[in-house]
Amino acid sequence: MTTWLRNAWYVAAWDAEIDRTPLARTICDVPMVFYRKLDRNVVAMRDACPHRMLPLSKGLREGDSIRCRYHGLKLGSDGLAEEMPIKTDMVNTRICTETFAIAERHRFVWVWIGEKDKADPGLIPDLWPCSHAGWTFDGGYYHVAADYRLMIDNLMDLTHETYVHSGSIGQPELMETPIETRVDGDRAYVTRWMPGIDAPPFWRAALKQDGPVDRWQICEFIPPSAVMIDVGVAPAGAGATLADHDQGVRGMVIDCMTPETETTMHYFWGMARSFDIDDAGFTARFKHQQGGVFLEDKDILEAQQGAIRANPDLKLNAFNIDQGGVRARQIIARLIREQEAAQ
Amino acid sequence: MTTWLRNAWYVAAWDAEIDRTPLARTICDVPMVFYRKLDRNVVAMRDACPHRMLPLSKGLREGDSIRCRYHGLKLGSDGLAEEMPIKTDMVNTRICTETFAIAERHRFVWVWIGEKDKADPGLIPDLWPCSHAGWTFDGGYYHVAADYRLMIDNLMDLTHETYVHSGSIGQPELMETPIETRVDGDRAYVTRWMPGIDAPPFWRAALKQDGPVDRWQICEFIPPSAVMIDVGVAPAGAGATLADHDQGVRGMVIDCMTPETETTMHYFWGMARSFDIDDAGFTARFKHQQGGVFLEDKDILEAQQGAIRANPDLKLNAFNIDQGGVRARQIIARLIREQEAAQ
Amino acid sequence: MTTWLRNAWYVAAWDAEIDRTPLARTICDVPMVFYRKLDRNVVAMRDACPHRMLPLSKGLREGDSIRCRYHGLKLGSDGLAEEMPIKTDMVNTRICTETFAIAERHRFVWVWIGEKDKADPGLIPDLWPCSHAGWTFDGGYYHVAADYRLMIDNLMDLTHETYVHSGSIGQPELMETPIETRVDGDRAYVTRWMPGIDAPPFWRAALKQDGPVDRWQICEFIPPSAVMIDVGVAPAGAGATLADHDQGVRGMVIDCMTPETETTMHYFWGMARSFDIDDAGFTARFKHQQGGVFLEDKDILEAQQGAIRANPDLKLNAFNIDQGGVRARQIIARLIREQEAAQ
Repeated sequence: MTTWLRNAWYVAAWDAEIDRTPLARTICDVPMVFYRKLDRNVVAMRDACPHRMLPLSKGLREGDSIRCRYHGLKLGSDGLAEEMPIKTDMVNTRICTETFAIAERHRFVWVWIGEKDKADPGLIPDLWPCSHAGWTFDGGYYHVAADYRLMIDNLMDLTHETYVHSGSIGQPELMETPIETRVDGDRAYVTRWMPGIDAPPFWRAALKQDGPVDRWQICEFIPPSAVMIDVGVAPAGAGATLADHDQGVRGMVIDCMTPETETTMHYFWGMARSFDIDDAGFTARFKHQQGGVFLEDKDILEAQQGAIRANPDLKLNAFNIDQGGVRARQIIARLIREQEAAQ
Repeated sequence: MTTWLRNAWYVAAWDAEIDRTPLARTICDVPMVFYRKLDRNVVAMRDACPHRMLPLSKGLREGDSIRCRYHGLKLGSDGLAEEMPIKTDMVNTRICTETFAIAERHRFVWVWIGEKDKADPGLIPDLWPCSHAGWTFDGGYYHVAADYRLMIDNLMDLTHETYVHSGSIGQPELMETPIETRVDGDRAYVTRWMPGIDAPPFWRAALKQDGPVDRWQICEFIPPSAVMIDVGVAPAGAGATLADHDQGVRGMVIDCMTPETETTMHYFWGMARSFDIDDAGFTARFKHQQGGVFLEDKDILEAQQGAIRANPDLKLNAFNIDQGGVRARQIIARLIREQEAAQ
Repeated sequence: MTTWLRNAWYVAAWDAEIDRTPLARTICDVPMVFYRKLDRNVVAMRDACPHRMLPLSKGLREGDSIRCRYHGLKLGSDGLAEEMPIKTDMVNTRICTETFAIAERHRFVWVWIGEKDKADPGLIPDLWPCSHAGWTFDGGYYHVAADYRLMIDNLMDLTHETYVHSGSIGQPELMETPIETRVDGDRAYVTRWMPGIDAPPFWRAALKQDGPVDRWQICEFIPPSAVMIDVGVAPAGAGATLADHDQGVRGMVIDCMTPETETTMHYFWGMARSFDIDDAGFTARFKHQQGGVFLEDKDILEAQQGAIRANPDLKLNAFNIDQGGVRARQIIARLIREQEAAQ
């Protein structure tokens, strides 16, 4: 039994990471190679030639096909052999490499690692702010040597900001405001409402005005492994509520964690916003600043994974503040059990 | 069954290595964090927060307590939770981290890894020359990637000096003089008496006179893993004997080996002396020179450990000269058996 | 069951690699030390002192003997103890280290890892061009992190030249000419005859004339792990045939693969030639150029071994072009079974 859901869409890459040059990336323990066809659609194959297993990512792309760099076996974008090493040899059409269902949405390339006939693009997590009119979205990628669920824990409990991000986005109010956790079907939510506080520097600059604000954080876990966080501030008294808060400045922090192995992950992070959406400088500054903040999380999570390995007799414990992560892990475990029972 | 005794005091650090800043060090496979309280007493805890296991050594010390750098759980020096991540949350006093008995003696910080109620400071190895009036003591630390027992073997058989330390303290007489091995309770001894020989350069300089000397080496193994070596020279005819030899210059080489894992150790080395005890230059020169000598041992032992790993079909053999190490290992094995039988 | 034949001669080193200074090299999972005696004969011993297992390769050679650098045990070139650490101690003649049968032939030092009484030098692979009048031979050494059989596969199927060596020796004709595979006893052969083609640059320069040539490649697998490739060109119409082809310029590519572990090898490569044999510059240029070509193979094979590790559910497949490697592997497997049955 794996620690991840198999019949699910995972982010394989940012849209811009994949182009004509083959990209090697291991998703859920499966080595894969990705590249774009001339029509820009993305191909995903097992990263091993069906002949002598050389990684196809070392190969030469020819048109929409890929040719192995060892003996020249040429495979079509459907994974089927198109040309044998000796060009005049009859092509054995049973020679093929495994391909994976791909979908591109919300600026990400998604891959399905489970049963192919169940790969319904309708199941892609609805990260709507990433591709919604009136919003702009950008972010970055980190490799993190930690179980992907540790990042879900991290994001579903923002009290860590005070200590991990003390130099940037931490704020004492985060610790003083009660949070509320709830589950709705396959989603888990953690909400925090901070009325009438001082805006932290980032939000004050975004709001472009002084005075007390209402601040909110709504963390939403979306299976198999995304966390979307609705954040922002509105001037106190402008009428913002947890349910409706477009009176001020609003962003959606987007975090997609894709298992690489049981103890390593691909971490795709970013922020969408509905204010100053044409300000490329704001986007660039945010990526630079937020990239530094998420490096602090990478450092902490890798140390945490190291301690899990070094202290095999100890266990992670959960406090009240961890309810969001606990609920998210319960949802993952339940969905894994359900999928395994269905097989 | 471990290769080390559990109910025993091990050197965790030199006194000067531990201060207010947390120090991470794994002792007998247990990751620990050490720091000093304001009263200078040393605290030792499991190096994993009882909340989400982040190493506490990455934490922030506050007064005598330590606060985890992830979510801010604050633990007292007794290991008990003092403040929850949300400061207003009631403290759950069952939340705690494992602490370890600590004692400071003979310039070393000692830690007890076994049953805590048996941690009697009276059981600390009596390395009296390290803290005795009329003596001065100093030394250094090396990490050595070898089973700690290989260093005991090494120190209980100084014939290796001729080859490993040919450029420094080796002397042909070491090979030509018979040794005597004996066991007295839990101690093993190897003695070598070299009457009427030329003093090697180090001892000649210490004695400050020419002419033949009587030289001695008395290696004493003290469980669980210390070796103390009485060394020195006295002018020939001054009446020095193996039992009584304060007629010339005398030093006590102190070596404490603490297992880190089955195949790595912390090596604390030094020399106490009862001559020129106010000569700080002598101490500094000794540390510099002896540090180089012990690096030669580190190099040899790590190669030896590598060969043990690479030749799983071979075994260490013992000759006459190895009797000291053999006896020391027998004492360790017997004490381990006795402790396990007592449980 | 190992992946290699035990009762067989393997190349341990080039003749020039071993001199008076001990050389450490692991052959078929056995750490060995090699050095030459004063009469230039090579000694091979287990690289672990029979006393405390320090690698003898760290030792001091004294005359034809070797002295361990730890306690000074001195071993003769027959592996028997000659002097104890304490020189006056009686030598225990049961103390010895394992030695290995050695033979020197064809510019290589060969070692026998199996039953010593079967180490017949007559069984050394007959790499005659390496030491034949009228021929000259030189080459190099690489460590390759791949199963030695992957290099046999590589060399028994030169169609890979088109893709792996596209910048140097690849030629489209290689892909267009049918190959023939045959087995003769314990040998496997792959032959390719390319009549009336343009000579590639290397061979044109060697032939020193323009015009169409007949080109041949005859790959011969010789157990346990050598591949010898008869290569060259002759002017078209000069009468060269697969069986007899000394009408032009002819070389013998020599490749000896020695297992280090199951997934690493020592790779000894070179070329003998029967033209311009006194042209040292030709030899030097060849070594430089061919060294680069074989580095391309090292890169490919290490990536292939990585893919084998990363895709445990996949298998190497064989096409027609792989018949040579398939046959060679079948011979190895059959000989291993026969040797194991004989025991």
